[in-house]
Amino acid sequence: MPDVFVMMGSASDKDKMKPCLQVLADLGIKAQVAVSSAHRTPERTGDLVDNAEKNGVKVFICAAGMAAHLAGAVAARTIRPVIGVPITGSALAGLDALLSTVQMPPGFPVATTALDSAGARNAAWLAAQILAVEDRELAEKIEKAREKMREGVEKSSREVEEEFARDTA
Amino acid sequence: MPDVFVMMGSASDKDKMKPCLQVLADLGIKAQVAVSSAHRTPERTGDLVDNAEKNGVKVFICAAGMAAHLAGAVAARTIRPVIGVPITGSALAGLDALLSTVQMPPGFPVATTALDSAGARNAAWLAAQILAVEDRELAEKIEKAREKMREGVEKSSREVEEEFARDTA
Amino acid sequence: MPDVFVMMGSASDKDKMKPCLQVLADLGIKAQVAVSSAHRTPERTGDLVDNAEKNGVKVFICAAGMAAHLAGAVAARTIRPVIGVPITGSALAGLDALLSTVQMPPGFPVATTALDSAGARNAAWLAAQILAVEDRELAEKIEKAREKMREGVEKSSREVEEEFARDTA
Amino acid sequence: MPDVFVMMGSASDKDKMKPCLQVLADLGIKAQVAVSSAHRTPERTGDLVDNAEKNGVKVFICAAGMAAHLAGAVAARTIRPVIGVPITGSALAGLDALLSTVQMPPGFPVATTALDSAGARNAAWLAAQILAVEDRELAEKIEKAREKMREGVEKSSREVEEEFARDTA
Amino acid sequence: MPDVFVMMGSASDKDKMKPCLQVLADLGIKAQVAVSSAHRTPERTGDLVDNAEKNGVKVFICAAGMAAHLAGAVAARTIRPVIGVPITGSALAGLDALLSTVQMPPGFPVATTALDSAGARNAAWLAAQILAVEDRELAEKIEKAREKMREGVEKSSREVEEEFARDTA
Amino acid sequence: MPDVFVMMGSASDKDKMKPCLQVLADLGIKAQVAVSSAHRTPERTGDLVDNAEKNGVKVFICAAGMAAHLAGAVAARTIRPVIGVPITGSALAGLDALLSTVQMPPGFPVATTALDSAGARNAAWLAAQILAVEDRELAEKIEKAREKMREGVEKSSREVEEEFARDTA
Amino acid sequence: MPDVFVMMGSASDKDKMKPCLQVLADLGIKAQVAVSSAHRTPERTGDLVDNAEKNGVKVFICAAGMAAHLAGAVAARTIRPVIGVPITGSALAGLDALLSTVQMPPGFPVATTALDSAGARNAAWLAAQILAVEDRELAEKIEKAREKMREGVEKSSREVEEEFARDTA
Amino acid sequence: MPDVFVMMGSASDKDKMKPCLQVLADLGIKAQVAVSSAHRTPERTGDLVDNAEKNGVKVFICAAGMAAHLAGAVAARTIRPVIGVPITGSALAGLDALLSTVQMPPGFPVATTALDSAGARNAAWLAAQILAVEDRELAEKIEKAREKMREGVEKSSREVEEEFARDTA
Repeated sequence: MPDVFVMMGSASDKDKMKPCLQVLADLGIKAQVAVSSAHRTPERTGDLVDNAEKNGVKVFICAAGMAAHLAGAVAARTIRPVIGVPITGSALAGLDALLSTVQMPPGFPVATTALDSAGARNAAWLAAQILAVEDRELAEKIEKAREKMREGVEKSSREVEEEFARDTA
Repeated sequence: MPDVFVMMGSASDKDKMKPCLQVLADLGIKAQVAVSSAHRTPERTGDLVDNAEKNGVKVFICAAGMAAHLAGAVAARTIRPVIGVPITGSALAGLDALLSTVQMPPGFPVATTALDSAGARNAAWLAAQILAVEDRELAEKIEKAREKMREGVEKSSREVEEEFARDTA
Repeated sequence: MPDVFVMMGSASDKDKMKPCLQVLADLGIKAQVAVSSAHRTPERTGDLVDNAEKNGVKVFICAAGMAAHLAGAVAARTIRPVIGVPITGSALAGLDALLSTVQMPPGFPVATTALDSAGARNAAWLAAQILAVEDRELAEKIEKAREKMREGVEKSSREVEEEFARDTA
Repeated sequence: MPDVFVMMGSASDKDKMKPCLQVLADLGIKAQVAVSSAHRTPERTGDLVDNAEKNGVKVFICAAGMAAHLAGAVAARTIRPVIGVPITGSALAGLDALLSTVQMPPGFPVATTALDSAGARNAAWLAAQILAVEDRELAEKIEKAREKMREGVEKSSREVEEEFARDTA
Repeated sequence: MPDVFVMMGSASDKDKMKPCLQVLADLGIKAQVAVSSAHRTPERTGDLVDNAEKNGVKVFICAAGMAAHLAGAVAARTIRPVIGVPITGSALAGLDALLSTVQMPPGFPVATTALDSAGARNAAWLAAQILAVEDRELAEKIEKAREKMREGVEKSSREVEEEFARDTA
Repeated sequence: MPDVFVMMGSASDKDKMKPCLQVLADLGIKAQVAVSSAHRTPERTGDLVDNAEKNGVKVFICAAGMAAHLAGAVAARTIRPVIGVPITGSALAGLDALLSTVQMPPGFPVATTALDSAGARNAAWLAAQILAVEDRELAEKIEKAREKMREGVEKSSREVEEEFARDTA
Repeated sequence: MPDVFVMMGSASDKDKMKPCLQVLADLGIKAQVAVSSAHRTPERTGDLVDNAEKNGVKVFICAAGMAAHLAGAVAARTIRPVIGVPITGSALAGLDALLSTVQMPPGFPVATTALDSAGARNAAWLAAQILAVEDRELAEKIEKAREKMREGVEKSSREVEEEFARDTA
Repeated sequence: MPDVFVMMGSASDKDKMKPCLQVLADLGIKAQVAVSSAHRTPERTGDLVDNAEKNGVKVFICAAGMAAHLAGAVAARTIRPVIGVPITGSALAGLDALLSTVQMPPGFPVATTALDSAGARNAAWLAAQILAVEDRELAEKIEKAREKMREGVEKSSREVEEEFARDTA
């Protein structure tokens, strides 16, 4: 049974959301995925949320672009934490999706992340951190992953340092 | 039975929406009003829309601020024309409500007007123009109102001309 | 005799407006098309609007970029509903066309849609919804089209679900 | 022992954050509060986070304005969920704090809410929803509070309906 | 017979445009003033422009807010230089009027100035500079006015220097 | 002897400014061109302006990107009309150059045009319109050019109408 | 002889710049102040910079609003570090001054600070930090001032903690 | 021993920062480079700053994108001047990094430059100008480099003048 439900407003958001699913898989978190639209399929969206809750889903991740209402619509339907990933479209530099996602009215928060694939990744990390509040094992996996990121920074630093040393030698 | 249903996401939008109701009343258009929220009362919003349609409402006007989803939620529920009035909040200069209202996905348009009370007025005029497509009498009322506006511009012009004439005399 | 008149400020808007004409054609709505500019050909624009009204056009759709005045100029000339589609140019991320189209003064609304081809599509849907207020047959076509969109979302969801299932299998 | 730690970057954020503390108190959630700055007191910020974690704090709420780094600095120090509330300053309409809070790099999410007191309230609700993932009693309190909000909307709707009825009577 | 025609889209722009008339009067430039709207009174606007041209008006100044089309509408009607002054409204920080005024299509320039009363003043100065291309006497007046501005800067500098000297003494 | 001096802040603005030179050449207006920077070569910029004025230049056109100070620096040096063309860079969507050009303080206007090559063209048209205030022959050339533009719109309209007719036939 | 020259583009920037002078005075840094405009008094600005350099000024601080060119004009004249403080005007939320100050072309940097009085303070701190590179005594003063700021944060935290404790007691 | 420490938040900023290292090398300024992240490696960032200071580093240059906290984190750790280079990401046109870098609270300035490689270059020039306050030899090198830039402008001007002369010949 999945702990996280990753919803996207359109199949065209798929590539930007792949890193989200990857991070969840790497952490061993079971996730369910669906395309559903706040406007085109509002009832389906509601049903999916209700069923997911019944199946024990604990955190929702919703990605959408333009007037990105999906996360808000889900947040209106469940009291589970809802994470929103704004997706940049062809105009307005992503401001539309960001503001539509984050500016929720009191009582119905959407935990908004960065735009696009950076946000997709962070939605997965945030979901993991929420689940880890009561899951020590998962918390340790996150700590280890952070440790690995740190090593990655150090490694990339050595490469950059060497490259610039060669350039100016 | 009302032809137009004016919905607002919060009672705090009331003062900005008064001019909308006034224009409708001046044109003799029957209107119904309600406060309902896309997030706090999604079911009520849906029921209000369904009932309104059954009662013969032909055009919806929805005012909301911040992540202004009300118009979009209504547009997802009915194929009647939905007019959206973005309301400026305390931050972001109104860009949030404007982009959340206008950037709707294909198939579910929201006819977006200007921000705040200018948009509230125009929502009423647009509703009237839509109803007037098949209502010659109403069309004539709109024409007459435009004629009056023209006279108002001319009158205000004479006052401004005289004031500047005095100033530079 | 056409019910909808699709105007664009420049022939360069043509490709972004094709989906608009396509949606109208799919719904069996008769449409007329013309290029006319609020600035380069203001008289022609006025004549086109007058003739269109005489020929029974009920809704105007106007697409323009930059200081997008076309929809506003048409709205000043007719009391028929005018739908504005802002077109993104090479700078300013489309904010110029959006704000020039939507921020109309009281009495002269432009029903503004999303930017570019999403807005082009929605202009057609909005025109159809306006015409359907008094046309039950058209209303049913729109309902059916929405039903088809819903099926499209479900189909794309299955594809995405399968793709992610394969990826994580 | 507190479950939530509410940090603010400056004592001047106090009034905008009061509703956050109020919501937490209303839900019976124990909260701790402190002023600490990512820039002026980075070590103190780190120590506060470490101590809070040791004391069992499960969720952090961080409010800051301008180049709002507090939430990010805390997110770099703990794997507990960190909620960021951007605070509007005197310039830039709040875009500075919003973008500084939400655009976090992969691995270190900040769950960003709306700006100012709407966001302050939602930070409390989001923290509650996160804690309620494993706390059925709290979940019921949130459900009840939402029920109350719904009644509030209905009540305010009746008042607005009556007011407009009087106005147009 | 006036050399400059100062038009404003609404009587509400009057106070912001007073400095414009004052600068013109100070330079001894004859100016005519009128309120006319691109949308509410398009024909009147056209007639005013035509008559003004016949009466020898050489430069047009147009002030307008929101979707500020007045300057563009005048620029479409005359080949006299048209200066546009964007007026800030209650939302969008003036970006709407600025972009609507400046982003004109090739062939129909609007010489855009700063927003509000700074722009109102500069519209007068720009009109004067245009007239001074062929008017040596006026050119000298402008030079003298600039000399006076320079003295004003020096005087205000002395005052500020003294004030700070006192403060830190 | 040239009537118009076209300055650009960097040789990289050259391609965007070619249409400006082309319009001037088409109208038979003599123009001089130079690269000079407000920051890298302030003295040279001043000398070029002084010499140009002595040689009878009547209008300045200045193109620059980023913190586009060139037009302002020239406007501070001459009372000839100065036209500013903001050039879009790789970031900020051109807002930087636009605001740096248009927001001039009272007394030192820059007649700002649209961004990039549309603005480059319009700078030439505006310069022509300024020169045409006292040059009937040039005024007629501009009128004729506008007539040609109108014919171009009509021709492109016929092409678009035929294309859509074919598409839907 | 002053080490720092604080210039402002207009006497109206005076109140926002007072905190800058105060910080410099508190650190015992000798400062000179003047009002001079990049556009109204370009020669005076140049002379002031030249004289200041001769008198040993090591760092320039320039405050200006709108198309804030003062810092850039000074940066073009001296190779001393130039710090720019963007000042918010009545429109555009300060974006104009910020972008005009920061987006300088290669070779002529302006060290840009935050907007308005926060930036005014930071300009003084930055100037002090630059002077402290070779002045150990000043470095210690800055360290002590930071220590005091830390104590201020702790003190304000205690007050806020107590206030919230009372509120929820 | 290096005088300047160039830090970047991610190895992906490397190409945009190469011009920075090049300018420093051309001026004979010794520089050290490292990748370190304010969020992924906060301790390493702190250690690098502390060690750099011990090794005599006098100026820090920090490049980062999105919620660009690196420069702020370094500024919180040292009283050496810290220069921030905002890096544009895939969304928001660079506004996120710019505002996150520049809007620092009083006492902890970041000397912010232009976005991307123009800013990278200017960070190097600004560092050089800071070091040159007490280094006459370096000051002369900067003066000479500026002289060369001036010649570059003149040369590019001749090329552009010739090209346009050929085009219109």
